[in-house]
Amino acid sequence: SHSDEFFVEGPNRAEQLVSAFFRGNDNFAQRHIGPREEERHLMLHSVGCQTFEEMIRKTVPESILMDRELNLDPAIGEFELLRRARELASMNEVHRSYIGLGYYGTRTVAPIMRNILENPGWYTQYTPYQPEIAQGRLESLLNFQTMVSSLTGLDVANASLLDESTAAAEAMGLAFRLNKRRKFFVDAKVHPQTIAVVQSRSEPLGIQVVVGDFLAADFSQKDYCGLLFQYPDTEGRISDSDFLAHKIGEIKSTGAIVSCATDLMALTLIRSPGELGCDVAVGSTQRFGVPLFFGGPHAAFFSVVDKHKRLMPGRMVGVSRDRTGAVAYRLALQAREQHIRRDKATSNICTAQALLANMAAMYAVYHGPAGLQKISAKIHGSALILSECLQQYGYHLRHKTFFDTLKIGIPDSNPSILTRIRDRCQENKINLRYYDDGDVGVSLDETITEQDLEDLFYVFDIQNSVQSLLHDWTGGLHRADKIDVIMESLPGSNLMHRGHPAQRQTKFLEQPVFQKYHSETDFMRYMKRLENKDISLVHGMIPLGSCTMKLNAASEMKPCYLPGFADIHPFVPPEQTKGYQQLISELGKDLCEITGYDKFSFQPNSGAAGEYAGLRTIMAYLKSIGQDHRKICLIPSSAHGTNPASAQMAGMKVEVVSLTKDGAIDVEEFKRKAEQFKDHLACAMITYPSTNGIFEDSIVEICEVVHRCGGQVYMDGANLNALVGVARPGDFGSDVSHLNLHKTFCIPHGGGGPGVGPIGVKSHLAPFLPDHPFYPSADGRSCGTISASYFGSAGILPISWAYIKMMGAKGLRRATEMAILNANYMGRKLSGHYKILCRGSKGFVAHEFILDCRGFKTTAGVEVVDIAKRLQDYGFHAPTMSWPVPGTLMVEPTESESLEELDRFCDAMIHIREEIRQIEQIPAGGTVDGWSREVNPLKMAPHTQWDIGANGKAWKFPYSITKAAYPTEKINPTNKVWPGCARVDDLYGDQNLICSCPPLESYVSGRTPLGSRS
Amino acid sequence: SHSDEFFVEGPNRAEQLVSAFFRGNDNFAQRHIGPREEERHLMLHSVGCQTFEEMIRKTVPESILMDRELNLDPAIGEFELLRRARELASMNEVHRSYIGLGYYGTRTVAPIMRNILENPGWYTQYTPYQPEIAQGRLESLLNFQTMVSSLTGLDVANASLLDESTAAAEAMGLAFRLNKRRKFFVDAKVHPQTIAVVQSRSEPLGIQVVVGDFLAADFSQKDYCGLLFQYPDTEGRISDSDFLAHKIGEIKSTGAIVSCATDLMALTLIRSPGELGCDVAVGSTQRFGVPLFFGGPHAAFFSVVDKHKRLMPGRMVGVSRDRTGAVAYRLALQAREQHIRRDKATSNICTAQALLANMAAMYAVYHGPAGLQKISAKIHGSALILSECLQQYGYHLRHKTFFDTLKIGIPDSNPSILTRIRDRCQENKINLRYYDDGDVGVSLDETITEQDLEDLFYVFDIQNSVQSLLHDWTGGLHRADKIDVIMESLPGSNLMHRGHPAQRQTKFLEQPVFQKYHSETDFMRYMKRLENKDISLVHGMIPLGSCTMKLNAASEMKPCYLPGFADIHPFVPPEQTKGYQQLISELGKDLCEITGYDKFSFQPNSGAAGEYAGLRTIMAYLKSIGQDHRKICLIPSSAHGTNPASAQMAGMKVEVVSLTKDGAIDVEEFKRKAEQFKDHLACAMITYPSTNGIFEDSIVEICEVVHRCGGQVYMDGANLNALVGVARPGDFGSDVSHLNLHKTFCIPHGGGGPGVGPIGVKSHLAPFLPDHPFYPSADGRSCGTISASYFGSAGILPISWAYIKMMGAKGLRRATEMAILNANYMGRKLSGHYKILCRGSKGFVAHEFILDCRGFKTTAGVEVVDIAKRLQDYGFHAPTMSWPVPGTLMVEPTESESLEELDRFCDAMIHIREEIRQIEQIPAGGTVDGWSREVNPLKMAPHTQWDIGANGKAWKFPYSITKAAYPTEKINPTNKVWPGCARVDDLYGDQNLICSCPPLESYVSGRTPLGSRS
Repeated sequence: SHSDEFFVEGPNRAEQLVSAFFRGNDNFAQRHIGPREEERHLMLHSVGCQTFEEMIRKTVPESILMDRELNLDPAIGEFELLRRARELASMNEVHRSYIGLGYYGTRTVAPIMRNILENPGWYTQYTPYQPEIAQGRLESLLNFQTMVSSLTGLDVANASLLDESTAAAEAMGLAFRLNKRRKFFVDAKVHPQTIAVVQSRSEPLGIQVVVGDFLAADFSQKDYCGLLFQYPDTEGRISDSDFLAHKIGEIKSTGAIVSCATDLMALTLIRSPGELGCDVAVGSTQRFGVPLFFGGPHAAFFSVVDKHKRLMPGRMVGVSRDRTGAVAYRLALQAREQHIRRDKATSNICTAQALLANMAAMYAVYHGPAGLQKISAKIHGSALILSECLQQYGYHLRHKTFFDTLKIGIPDSNPSILTRIRDRCQENKINLRYYDDGDVGVSLDETITEQDLEDLFYVFDIQNSVQSLLHDWTGGLHRADKIDVIMESLPGSNLMHRGHPAQRQTKFLEQPVFQKYHSETDFMRYMKRLENKDISLVHGMIPLGSCTMKLNAASEMKPCYLPGFADIHPFVPPEQTKGYQQLISELGKDLCEITGYDKFSFQPNSGAAGEYAGLRTIMAYLKSIGQDHRKICLIPSSAHGTNPASAQMAGMKVEVVSLTKDGAIDVEEFKRKAEQFKDHLACAMITYPSTNGIFEDSIVEICEVVHRCGGQVYMDGANLNALVGVARPGDFGSDVSHLNLHKTFCIPHGGGGPGVGPIGVKSHLAPFLPDHPFYPSADGRSCGTISASYFGSAGILPISWAYIKMMGAKGLRRATEMAILNANYMGRKLSGHYKILCRGSKGFVAHEFILDCRGFKTTAGVEVVDIAKRLQDYGFHAPTMSWPVPGTLMVEPTESESLEELDRFCDAMIHIREEIRQIEQIPAGGTVDGWSREVNPLKMAPHTQWDIGANGKAWKFPYSITKAAYPTEKINPTNKVWPGCARVDDLYGDQNLICSCPPLESYVSGRTPLGSRS
Repeated sequence: SHSDEFFVEGPNRAEQLVSAFFRGNDNFAQRHIGPREEERHLMLHSVGCQTFEEMIRKTVPESILMDRELNLDPAIGEFELLRRARELASMNEVHRSYIGLGYYGTRTVAPIMRNILENPGWYTQYTPYQPEIAQGRLESLLNFQTMVSSLTGLDVANASLLDESTAAAEAMGLAFRLNKRRKFFVDAKVHPQTIAVVQSRSEPLGIQVVVGDFLAADFSQKDYCGLLFQYPDTEGRISDSDFLAHKIGEIKSTGAIVSCATDLMALTLIRSPGELGCDVAVGSTQRFGVPLFFGGPHAAFFSVVDKHKRLMPGRMVGVSRDRTGAVAYRLALQAREQHIRRDKATSNICTAQALLANMAAMYAVYHGPAGLQKISAKIHGSALILSECLQQYGYHLRHKTFFDTLKIGIPDSNPSILTRIRDRCQENKINLRYYDDGDVGVSLDETITEQDLEDLFYVFDIQNSVQSLLHDWTGGLHRADKIDVIMESLPGSNLMHRGHPAQRQTKFLEQPVFQKYHSETDFMRYMKRLENKDISLVHGMIPLGSCTMKLNAASEMKPCYLPGFADIHPFVPPEQTKGYQQLISELGKDLCEITGYDKFSFQPNSGAAGEYAGLRTIMAYLKSIGQDHRKICLIPSSAHGTNPASAQMAGMKVEVVSLTKDGAIDVEEFKRKAEQFKDHLACAMITYPSTNGIFEDSIVEICEVVHRCGGQVYMDGANLNALVGVARPGDFGSDVSHLNLHKTFCIPHGGGGPGVGPIGVKSHLAPFLPDHPFYPSADGRSCGTISASYFGSAGILPISWAYIKMMGAKGLRRATEMAILNANYMGRKLSGHYKILCRGSKGFVAHEFILDCRGFKTTAGVEVVDIAKRLQDYGFHAPTMSWPVPGTLMVEPTESESLEELDRFCDAMIHIREEIRQIEQIPAGGTVDGWSREVNPLKMAPHTQWDIGANGKAWKFPYSITKAAYPTEKINPTNKVWPGCARVDDLYGDQNLICSCPPLESYVSGRTPLGSRS
């Protein structure tokens, strides 16, 4: 009997009938949710409940339970969704945008689109915290780092940041941390959104940002912690590089850190920041084949000179070795991260833009250095052609040397000419940058065609033809069949002319990976080989507590690729983005209904950015009521490390509240501290349900206390998947939350990004939400600018929008119930074998639960990491390890996993428990059946194909290959996923930090012992 | 130094400059071709040539060499291609088509689209002739067979056929072969295109087709071999099933075979052909989620009662066992196939529509029986609603009982009403079927929405609203939230009313696979699991001689999914298909230029269908000049088995010509036979370069002889990949060829189809090319109808069109040269280890070569199949085995494979040769190092994960796991592909034929010994 349970939707009976009738079998909630209708009843039974209602009543405090259904549009099917998405996409107007400002047209490579962006094998992966089953994307991210490091001429790069502007703010943070000086210089010709983000970020840190002409500025007082300039600058200018290098040297001699915002495409032609002497380079890799996406997601980069590498923000992939001594990749220097350093962390950056970084890296792999140079030659050549014509027609070129961007003065400052330009742009669907000073900006990109140039000629009323110009310039040149030969003939400040002073003198991307995969066949196989090294949701559940690895449905993602969504520059006039505005407003409205908040800002492009934005919003509000002395932020000790890190960045002072021994917030201590700080309390940050996976009964009381003491409540939305349709934070006392759309609302994790972290607020906070230089707030009360683009990662918002539209109120509630049921089902099943650490007052966990593994250290010498690695042999990605409680595993199944899969995982855990029991029998220093406490299936896990013969050697462990690699019948060749390497040695890699591609020979054998590297 | 060699394109210098300039790095030929520029020179050297020119002169006879470049449009880049494709797609008008006739709107399931149709892991696979590395798609095709067999109620189904009409013709063939009677009855209410194909096919077989009302016809003379009727018929009628069953019984009692063309969607509601007593069922699975594609490709089905299964045409997947006794799938009853039976084959069918069959099967897996029934309830319900309203408004319903299709008489036969209907359809972009008798046809499908029905109301001027109708009918019904409850309330001849006599009485799709994967997560994992069992081009080269497994570029395939190409019904008015017409005309023009022919027909949807169509064209021509007594067809003994099979089907008599001992056609014998039969010679069928992989110098002479003796030359285009840009068959004497667009022109093989086999002819044959009932030829001289739709598999023609547009003349020529160079490079490299069987007069092979393995049987007891299976351990799909010469391997690398990959394959072959040498040392009955002639790595190959421990047992072979599974350093965990099962026992499966899904328990363990099945 096939279920229809979410079938009836519609405001009245007649419409419900029509909906039920025409839906056919197109009932998305049934596709999204794993367990089948008939199984759900069995599962409810197993946790001692008759109905979902009963289970919820036993799990969630009555005081916060919603007493009604969410008021959302009736759920629509997948096909109606696609139709609606197409309709919205067509309401956006795709113009050719020559606006620049860090966003450029690009040609997404078809095989990258197909094999990465549209491939669940790449986009459903988690962050590579388990490196043995993530060697594929770790290699790709290492390629990314190598690409950035090579092109910027700096020693070490990270695995991407959120966007160029926040990367610039991180550069300021790095400088400040190094020398503690409280002034930071930003050149006035940096992109305005970057200046805004840096300024916003500086304020709570107590740094004064000075904006001016850095070439003319005086740094001799040694009071600047650092400088940020843009190169080529926002107007396109490439300054004289000798003078630049000289000035940079001078500034550095004052102890200031010099950071440069730059453009990787330009760097294929011009001297790199490293050659100029910069300490830090930042920028965006968007134009390396990632669609404009109305502003994001895109991967920003960050590279530094060697000596500062240990202060670098964000994730870094490094080369290390595995158990057998072979090369293995893994995230390096994890100890820097906020989840360990908390309010002493150097940054709250917690994620990267892995999927987009992989796309950009693959773009470089596909084109190689020579191919990239051809692309930039074409871009630069087109700019030269246009600039020559403009000058011929009386326009003023503001800067003589440029790569792709021209700042153009109107002949005789004749305003009618500007009007004509604007009219003709409108007529031809062209966007230019219009400066406040009446100048016009044009930034060209790799999509430029002959026709595009001719259209620009028309816009500027230039009577020329590209063809005849090229023909005339090249003259009798008969071998002008290569672009570099043609380029020689182009006049102007031609960066490809021999001896041009700005010309790049150093080679780049010489590593084999950028030379080897230039045929599509080779390239496709390379991408597939990497994909197949990694575990993703296509293989099985990834039960990571607090990460909500649920289904990312194909129908949810499809709208993102529509040109009407993908090909929109973030700074186009609003009349071109009516579809986006409609979609974002619908999504905002739905999220308000779901959370009980009154307004949403979509600017934060990660959860941590959301925390920061939310706290800044609180501070701006407090300031508006004369309470800006309030800086205390209460945070329970079990909070995610980003909480204190964000609070510190927002200028708050963290006060930690302890937990009771059963894992709940110590309410008495909380009250005491709130009272103690009541004159300085800014807010409390609470995760709910708690990071320990329980619904604490005290939540309403806690919120009341905070309010009574003059503070605001920040509820971390990480665990919203246990609340949707059941309870609304805005109703039970919270003032602001960030939501992780990449958790609860189905945006894929992408192997470590993108994330989207919008914040919802109650109405009193709404005026203080983030604004943006191109979307200034009306009354200037905004807390500032958080991200490079106003709507953050707008390009993937259609995913969450689609999820809500297709689930409807009933579907969303059932998803929550199912997520909770799945967790409780597993908890019960495992409770005979492991201790479940925390439970709610009626014995139920929320949507996740903690398995206590601490005792095994004593009884068997087994640590939680051994269990995690052993799970790989069973084909599973481990649950969250040692967080929030050291020595435990936190399991979150989500609603998308089927009963069979839950059972498969439980079986694996139970088998592992049996193995631990066997180890417990071994006397210290002794052996039983050959097993010792040092050599047994858990300690040696994961087992690889190298172990079973690929290394040319015989099997060497005191147990069988079957025991090692096929430990139960459920693990068999039809589902076996082999780890790409044996257990990785983290320490070795951190002590011997290598963060770019190893040399050629490693690629040839696929496995080079570290020792053999010269 | 990056190559620019194909960069210059354009009719004049100025345009060449522009092209070179704006291309950037978008140079498709460099992406398509594997070896890099610098490697090509080394490779040329290694075969003793300085230039490609020189190599071609040494390979191809001078007499046929082109003395000019192909005259094609300048090559365009991948992005310009996509722009042009979008332009053409937008010239097609996507109307809602209610035309029916075997083609219906459908909702392609997003995860199927993403994970199968758009996934190279599924579409680049070859036909599963090597079952051990094809268990994934074999399982999926078995699902297809199970689905067909279950829904049609017949015992055995095949793995798909080309289209419904040819499937019907095959049913006639089966009947004829069974009882040899020369009359065949076709009911007049069969789709017209099917009648046309059956009629065309009957003629050369000497069968008389009688078209009429089968229910009234007299079969008592026992002179009919069989009957074909349609159910529901082409007008939508479902006849009284008791009467039908009775009549069928009566007809069968005369010894005639009863075949039924049917519709799987309808069969979810109505009695199956099996229940009615039919022997055979045929039809299309298009509406199971495969886009309309302007007529194809779609998978047709064919099922039969058990006793006729060994006469079933086409491929059949069967269940067998492997070396270890475990369940394994493989193609069954291969001995029936034309490549073995040649002119005694039961059919020339050589391919299937595997990719489309997999899509349709997955649609059934995704929806399951209950889901399918919901879909058909919606379709049927919509038809009921429409029919009720039509009757209310005075229209005449021609048939009372229907599923989805209505034949509608106009009220009072008022012609102005018909005009109004046509006008309103035009206005609303709606296509109906207009019968010659003035009636109108409407076929509904699963895409129907409330708005669509309302629009149809408008077309028929019905003043009703769907909502109020549903509301009224269901009345006070308060539990009308399920479609089956709503259905109960609908009036008319409602198939879902309890007790409706036509109602299906039997269950269907009860196998576990149709119940288990209904959440998207489970479904995605299932598709991925199957994908990962198989070797495809994403893993490495598939060097199949005569199959040309080259790159299928993502950019080539992208246009096919544009709604403007995907969503067009094949029988819409031509003014709606201007884009398709433009594309097909451009492709035809380009192919004419490439081959030297004057006109192309795109109707044949496989190579074999092309052969048949070409031969029929020759026969029609001969008839037109009074030479229809000419029936002799000369075919060299090395020809592909389809050649004689097609000739036989086309009514010709095959005369075989021998080869010389070096593999060339025996020219003297050829001449002698041509002369001998010169009064009856119809044609000669020649493959060129020959199936032995050489350019025979005698080709021009052979063509001349045929012409001199009054015959036509049919040149099989299978090896055209060695000719494009180098020589044109139309120039050197051929009159007609089929081209395999799925070989030379990049249409992916799809794991065993689709194929596209257009035929090109010289102008004298052009009037005789195939026509179609909806595209009748002007003068009636056509040879008849070959396929269900006029343009065959039109939907994938954009792939070949794109390939030619992006390669241009220079690129195509270089591809040919590179294909030849790759083959010669490998040939030289392997010639020290294996004997190369045939070479051209100057020592060069064409684009493929034959490795002689016959001697090893004597020296080592090793057969060619052992080498093929051993190659799987090295990660390779074997070359073509034992064809055209038994005991050999034919290797075709294609131009897309890189030097590194060629070397990797050669290394594997050389290692295997060393292994054979070791075996040669073993005395008969003895052992050396534990190896015997019976147990050694070749005989035991392929080695599986089961062998290394997954079976719970210790390794048991007298050599190491390393030797078995990682025999060289180049085979390592980064590229290891494990065979899904050990060597399959073909004989066992044929003796114990099982062609549908095994029972539940096999799925649970993933591996059930056959013995354990009850």
